[in-house]
Amino acid sequence: MKQIISENYGSFEYTEGGVCAAKGFKASGYYCGIKAFMKTGADGNESPLPGQKNDIALMVADAPCNTAGVYTSNKVKGAPVVVTKNNLAASGGKSRAVIVNSGNANTCNGDGEEKAKAMCGLVAEKLGIAPEMVIVASTGVIGQVLPLEPIKKAIDPLFEGLSYTGNEAAATAIMTTDTVKKEYAVKFTAGGRECFIGGMAKGSGMIHPNMATTLNFITTDCAASPEILQKALSEVVKVTYNCLSVDGDQSTNDTCMLMSSGLAGNAEITSEGEDFDTLRDALYQVMANLTRMLAKDGEGATKLVTCVCSGAPDQDTAIVIAKSVIRSPLVKCAMYGADANCGRILCAMGYAETDCDVTEADVYYISNGKKILVCEKGLGLKFDEDLAKEILSADEIEIYAELHRGTETAVAWGCDLTYDYVKINGDYRT
Amino acid sequence: MKQIISENYGSFEYTEGGVCAAKGFKASGYYCGIKAFMKTGADGNESPLPGQKNDIALMVADAPCNTAGVYTSNKVKGAPVVVTKNNLAASGGKSRAVIVNSGNANTCNGDGEEKAKAMCGLVAEKLGIAPEMVIVASTGVIGQVLPLEPIKKAIDPLFEGLSYTGNEAAATAIMTTDTVKKEYAVKFTAGGRECFIGGMAKGSGMIHPNMATTLNFITTDCAASPEILQKALSEVVKVTYNCLSVDGDQSTNDTCMLMSSGLAGNAEITSEGEDFDTLRDALYQVMANLTRMLAKDGEGATKLVTCVCSGAPDQDTAIVIAKSVIRSPLVKCAMYGADANCGRILCAMGYAETDCDVTEADVYYISNGKKILVCEKGLGLKFDEDLAKEILSADEIEIYAELHRGTETAVAWGCDLTYDYVKINGDYRT
Repeated sequence: MKQIISENYGSFEYTEGGVCAAKGFKASGYYCGIKAFMKTGADGNESPLPGQKNDIALMVADAPCNTAGVYTSNKVKGAPVVVTKNNLAASGGKSRAVIVNSGNANTCNGDGEEKAKAMCGLVAEKLGIAPEMVIVASTGVIGQVLPLEPIKKAIDPLFEGLSYTGNEAAATAIMTTDTVKKEYAVKFTAGGRECFIGGMAKGSGMIHPNMATTLNFITTDCAASPEILQKALSEVVKVTYNCLSVDGDQSTNDTCMLMSSGLAGNAEITSEGEDFDTLRDALYQVMANLTRMLAKDGEGATKLVTCVCSGAPDQDTAIVIAKSVIRSPLVKCAMYGADANCGRILCAMGYAETDCDVTEADVYYISNGKKILVCEKGLGLKFDEDLAKEILSADEIEIYAELHRGTETAVAWGCDLTYDYVKINGDYRT
Repeated sequence: MKQIISENYGSFEYTEGGVCAAKGFKASGYYCGIKAFMKTGADGNESPLPGQKNDIALMVADAPCNTAGVYTSNKVKGAPVVVTKNNLAASGGKSRAVIVNSGNANTCNGDGEEKAKAMCGLVAEKLGIAPEMVIVASTGVIGQVLPLEPIKKAIDPLFEGLSYTGNEAAATAIMTTDTVKKEYAVKFTAGGRECFIGGMAKGSGMIHPNMATTLNFITTDCAASPEILQKALSEVVKVTYNCLSVDGDQSTNDTCMLMSSGLAGNAEITSEGEDFDTLRDALYQVMANLTRMLAKDGEGATKLVTCVCSGAPDQDTAIVIAKSVIRSPLVKCAMYGADANCGRILCAMGYAETDCDVTEADVYYISNGKKILVCEKGLGLKFDEDLAKEILSADEIEIYAELHRGTETAVAWGCDLTYDYVKINGDYRT
């Protein structure tokens, strides 16, 4: 697929509504006290994080949804990841509801799968469906037992709160160290019908491919088979979430789900063709924008940093090189300090795991429509230091590398490395 | 080879003298002004970094030395790396002298090879030898032209300063952001003769395998063929420097040289056997201690963090897992904050690039003879938070992971991630 390298990542019309933009999806959020459990100190005090009160989210579809998923490749897998994968296999790629808690990852704690299944059971019972039709996810601290009591008590209020405009309540409930909610949706046409696709995501640390970020839920009313949804999701994940790195740490609980209610009324897309391309491109626009939001809200970040690698012999090479630059702690610190050090860019390109020759690359810094060439054919240049400082002082910076080795391009998203990243992660658990 | 997992990494007797501990090696250091060039700001001021005045080092051997080298695997290679490799090939693994500057990496600047050759030529002329007998290395900012004039002027004073006790002057001259010099040497017996082996190294950022750190020079008077020296060096690098990570960035200029003057008088070691084992073990003790010093003086570091991975099916697996833990920014922040978060350790073990099952690992934190189990069979435990805090507040911490999958062990060295790392690297160049 062709990537669009621009701020909007596509030309579909933006629409409000996040995971509720598509027809047939209700959502709600609630504060049940798991985050308070997380914050229990030696003194017995329980205090939720400020501005992040909700810690459990529910999504329910009006109809059974064809569903696709992509999960962490970490060998230490969160219990909810295991349960969700099994459920989707048992239901033949169908789901009706999603339950997610933040504050506790329900991972490496002994009874995680039992608890994750219990969460599915609580939701299934209310809906009168099989537990395998429920998707479950958790995010937060690893290695602690998940208390089930608060979740049991939250079920009734969550169902009472369900609404076709509940997307924001859900999007805020899945946040951990995120400072802002992440939602995006677009409108498109498939099979002559107006369709919607939208999603929510949460970061904001332990973020690195493959399956970059932790939790992502995308819904559409465009009818499509589970196989087609999986194909679209896998293709788009490769060039969006998997091109995101906040800190190089790949989480145990990464989950990205795509659910289709089919309520747009189009003929179900069951093969490749024009409608598939449209759906995939709309999905790309949603996921690229969510990826951008995740990078910009990376733990401690003050700047969004993207790297566009151009002139590569193939797309995989472009991806590997762009990601290597975005991941480099030295590049990230230089971006924080607005230091136009081109050596670190070249260095990170040089140790990227590819055979591609990068020794003749041109490197530019770009922001707010201004552009400066700092390296030409692999050689550092003397350049206007004031202009470089101005460009690197913006809150959104692009590093553009032209390899002169082909015609393929890819973008990777990241952020700067700051004092606050160290502060947040020096004392996260306690 | 068998690794010794302890503070001293071996039982050979420590001796003073660094690169001058072995018979037949003189060294000197001098301040020629390259670091001042590096510090030239927009205001025209040139100020050397405090406490690091020397910026050029010379080492000369009394006799031609059999020589082995290991270099960066970064595709963007510093010009001095290219010239040194070519020289060693042309001379058939022989060298007489080493010249090193700090403050400018002489890389990605167009005329780097020419300048590196000129540096060799200046030294060769004074000694009346072929330029191919000279090893050259540079460390510092990438992408800037190296000024040759200050180096020309430094040659006479460097030769005048040469001394059999000049190791410290040389060891300080190769420092960049290092806060302390790194030297280590031991005494051993080979072929019935008393031998010495010692080295110096510099860090302290852009440090990650393979060929972890930037510049390392090791000398011995133990006679050994170039092939045997190369074999010993390659084996030991694998379990020392290549198990070191400060920030995950692999430098363009990494160089590790081992030179033998042969002046100990032993019969030249030309094959494997008892003497080879002794030489290699002595080299291990030197390099493991230098690695430890490099980790402890990592940019901004307040703590040395080692990870011992035990119970692995093979040594490579143990290395990969130990390195993954040491590299993780989240683990590094947790060590800085003395946060006994075992989830991050398990997570980093889980995304290590190996097929080994790590889901049943035990994890301990150890310091000052105290030890706490925080994870057993892959499950987080409730533990004594006060004891954990005490252990993690030490300035040297060991993370011990037992996989229960075999009998092999490896150690990796690193440090915590701190505000100061961000500060140093947010404004290094300017």
